[in-house]
Amino acid sequence: MAYTLGELARRFDCRLSGGGDDRTITGVASLDTAGPDDITFLANPKLRVQLAGTLAAAVILDSESEAHRNGPCLVTANPYASFVRVAELLHPEAPVQPGIHPGAVIASSAVVAESARVDAGCVIGESARIGERAWIGPGCVIGEQSAIGADSRLHARVTVYPRVRVGERTRIHAGVVLGADGFGLVREEEGWLRVPHLGGLRIGDDVDIGANTTIDRGTLEDTVIGNGVKLDNLIQIAHNVIVGDHTVMAACVGIAGSTRVGERCLIGGRANLFGHITIGDDATIAATSAVTRSVPPGGYVSSVIGAQEAGRWRRTAARVHRIEELASRIRALEQRMDENNGGREE
Amino acid sequence: MAYTLGELARRFDCRLSGGGDDRTITGVASLDTAGPDDITFLANPKLRVQLAGTLAAAVILDSESEAHRNGPCLVTANPYASFVRVAELLHPEAPVQPGIHPGAVIASSAVVAESARVDAGCVIGESARIGERAWIGPGCVIGEQSAIGADSRLHARVTVYPRVRVGERTRIHAGVVLGADGFGLVREEEGWLRVPHLGGLRIGDDVDIGANTTIDRGTLEDTVIGNGVKLDNLIQIAHNVIVGDHTVMAACVGIAGSTRVGERCLIGGRANLFGHITIGDDATIAATSAVTRSVPPGGYVSSVIGAQEAGRWRRTAARVHRIEELASRIRALEQRMDENNGGREE
Amino acid sequence: MAYTLGELARRFDCRLSGGGDDRTITGVASLDTAGPDDITFLANPKLRVQLAGTLAAAVILDSESEAHRNGPCLVTANPYASFVRVAELLHPEAPVQPGIHPGAVIASSAVVAESARVDAGCVIGESARIGERAWIGPGCVIGEQSAIGADSRLHARVTVYPRVRVGERTRIHAGVVLGADGFGLVREEEGWLRVPHLGGLRIGDDVDIGANTTIDRGTLEDTVIGNGVKLDNLIQIAHNVIVGDHTVMAACVGIAGSTRVGERCLIGGRANLFGHITIGDDATIAATSAVTRSVPPGGYVSSVIGAQEAGRWRRTAARVHRIEELASRIRALEQRMDENNGGREE
Repeated sequence: MAYTLGELARRFDCRLSGGGDDRTITGVASLDTAGPDDITFLANPKLRVQLAGTLAAAVILDSESEAHRNGPCLVTANPYASFVRVAELLHPEAPVQPGIHPGAVIASSAVVAESARVDAGCVIGESARIGERAWIGPGCVIGEQSAIGADSRLHARVTVYPRVRVGERTRIHAGVVLGADGFGLVREEEGWLRVPHLGGLRIGDDVDIGANTTIDRGTLEDTVIGNGVKLDNLIQIAHNVIVGDHTVMAACVGIAGSTRVGERCLIGGRANLFGHITIGDDATIAATSAVTRSVPPGGYVSSVIGAQEAGRWRRTAARVHRIEELASRIRALEQRMDENNGGREE
Repeated sequence: MAYTLGELARRFDCRLSGGGDDRTITGVASLDTAGPDDITFLANPKLRVQLAGTLAAAVILDSESEAHRNGPCLVTANPYASFVRVAELLHPEAPVQPGIHPGAVIASSAVVAESARVDAGCVIGESARIGERAWIGPGCVIGEQSAIGADSRLHARVTVYPRVRVGERTRIHAGVVLGADGFGLVREEEGWLRVPHLGGLRIGDDVDIGANTTIDRGTLEDTVIGNGVKLDNLIQIAHNVIVGDHTVMAACVGIAGSTRVGERCLIGGRANLFGHITIGDDATIAATSAVTRSVPPGGYVSSVIGAQEAGRWRRTAARVHRIEELASRIRALEQRMDENNGGREE
Repeated sequence: MAYTLGELARRFDCRLSGGGDDRTITGVASLDTAGPDDITFLANPKLRVQLAGTLAAAVILDSESEAHRNGPCLVTANPYASFVRVAELLHPEAPVQPGIHPGAVIASSAVVAESARVDAGCVIGESARIGERAWIGPGCVIGEQSAIGADSRLHARVTVYPRVRVGERTRIHAGVVLGADGFGLVREEEGWLRVPHLGGLRIGDDVDIGANTTIDRGTLEDTVIGNGVKLDNLIQIAHNVIVGDHTVMAACVGIAGSTRVGERCLIGGRANLFGHITIGDDATIAATSAVTRSVPPGGYVSSVIGAQEAGRWRRTAARVHRIEELASRIRALEQRMDENNGGREE
């Protein structure tokens, strides 16, 4: 694919500055690796020092950075978003090649759209439905009565248990497990009774799910992942959880059962949300934090403890373990001080 | 499936109260979603306020909650357990349909019971054994000389390495990896020498293992998971670990090498157990805790730090990092106080 | 396999002591489980008390432990390394049996070496290359244009996305996902724009990767895992990360995007490295630590908080949350002390 800078400017509604209207662009790259046929971008003002050295044909940047660029640039309010759109134009994903691989095993009552693609090694259960232009990658297993929406893509080896619904334009990476039984147990005299999971799992439209993430089905009702939710790799979402639209979670997040997460929340990597709590809309949770209580809408909570030099940390941690002793000593000092002062006042 | 309330009472040894002996029950649901043909339950006294509004035909509850229910109910000591049993009766799992899918690849010396089922895409190695009524889901890989016990079920895409033994009535969810080599390394001048893992892995009877969990084989002896152990998703159990009967671990727990976990322990989600320690029987470990030392039988340990408002937490964490400075200032105050008092006493 | 003690001594350059030159050795075991045909080892001086009781034919140990052994032993500077070499000799891995299983699906332009092995259920994409003596286990998916180096082994159900390069003698365990798209998002007015991942992933020679670990491809450049790197299970490595040669990471480590990890680092289990930081060569990171800033070469950092008895911990954690109050009280005491002393001095 190749476009002139002028075409890119018009197509993505950027202002072309510094000339180069007819310059041909064939690729995208970062500031320091771009060659003379590449376009690059500057979103972080700290990287302005790299502008002078870049070999890129053009730079996408905002009007505040424009003056720092000596050469062709596309000026726009959100340079990274425009760069992404240019990248998609120059490096488009191949369209889905329809067809069912002869090595796939499709139940007789399953319905696969004509325009869909099912790769080798897939196993698709009774009454399952695969939507228009959906792409089921190699080795995926789709359970009975589950449905994959139009234009969704499952990469390799995704497992979808029975009665799971996946929306449209949703992308699911390799190794993901959707709709396994939740972890419900009842204690009995001898051991544990497993709680049957009669609920399902609903995944919205435009969702991304990263590699080896697991999302369990509900106990009596459904587990629900809203539209536009973006999940990174190795995330665990337990039974009966509800995640609101456009919420984003970085890798290794864990959410315990029956917790509700609002819309447009930002949840940092390795954060752990306890069960039966509510995270309000637009809340932010710092990476590695343990969220033991509900968070109000718009709230921003954290319990990150950054590492420090290990010898010093050993003393710090030992002192934290005995923090009550510090508190006692302060109390004792306060009493002595009061007595002394009282004594003097007399 | 449909049963009268009277039949359910007799079958599960509950006392029928509030009439409705002939009422037909066809489903189970929660208090707030149950319809007029459903049975529901009340285990948490806080939910008693929902009793008045439920449309359920009957409620399973204990004698203390009985007076709060105006209508048919089944009275029993453990309402949730009885509810689970009713749910299993009304929504039974389909019995295993025996047979080996023609797309499965079975080594000539492998032995699959007549009553077992092996789905499409499975690969079963030499001398492996699949027990009576066991169900090996699509895409599973069973290594040489491994054995799956009677009535066990492997969901899709489970990997069982060679020489792993899985007991009876054990259920293993999709993506689980059993018996990979442990992480054993010997430092050498240039790089690392990988330690061969000659031990095996034994999984007991009535075990549950959640999606994408990994359990490594032992170095020289076996890694062992006892009977009735229940493991949630994305758990990591390292080489040479021994887990006692009926112990329960929530999602994302990690256990380092050679640690021994007792019987009937409760291990909260994301807890991390260091290597070469011993957790006594009936111990409890709070979610997200780092267990660096052994825990005595019946012990209950924690190092959870719940998140607080992020700005406040930033100051808190910074102060924690300098907690030794607080301790020094307290010590200085104590000395000054002693000197002052000493001075006055003279 | 069987060797005499004398042969083992000569082959691995150990000094035979205590006789037994002609003694036949057929197996390896630990000190307490070894039988009379086994060889064992002693690396940890604390276990010397077990020397008297071992039934092993011989013990591999260092010269400091030699005097504690009454019987045949092989004396060497690094007993564990020698033991590992003996174990590999006595229990060698079977050589790779070349051949492509008829149930594998190989694209017409893919190149599989004559000496390589591809198991049932594999799907290998266009222009992929499988090197000499490489072994692709059952159910693996190798994307277009990806390459697996000579003598490397992929265990069952590994997913390799397109344009990923894996080096030689590298071992990848079941369920691993290599080269999925990184988690790159641009916020837009309504929801999120997914950043295309045009970079690749390069894995070096002699790397080990544990079960269900995920390593994402880069955004514009490659994610890179150096030679000799050893990764345990369930690790997450995000896009654009660079890991230096011979670095070791225990299970459940998470590394956020664009972080650079040096050579020969030791990263403990469940450690979490934030994005865009640099870990110097030879650094050590304690298990479960959150690394929020760069670490200098040779540095050793930690933020582990070990669990304590839960009731006591509850008070500790509550006090930590109010640590600023302690600081304020200390400040107040200091002021009062200064005023008192000032008063007295006047």
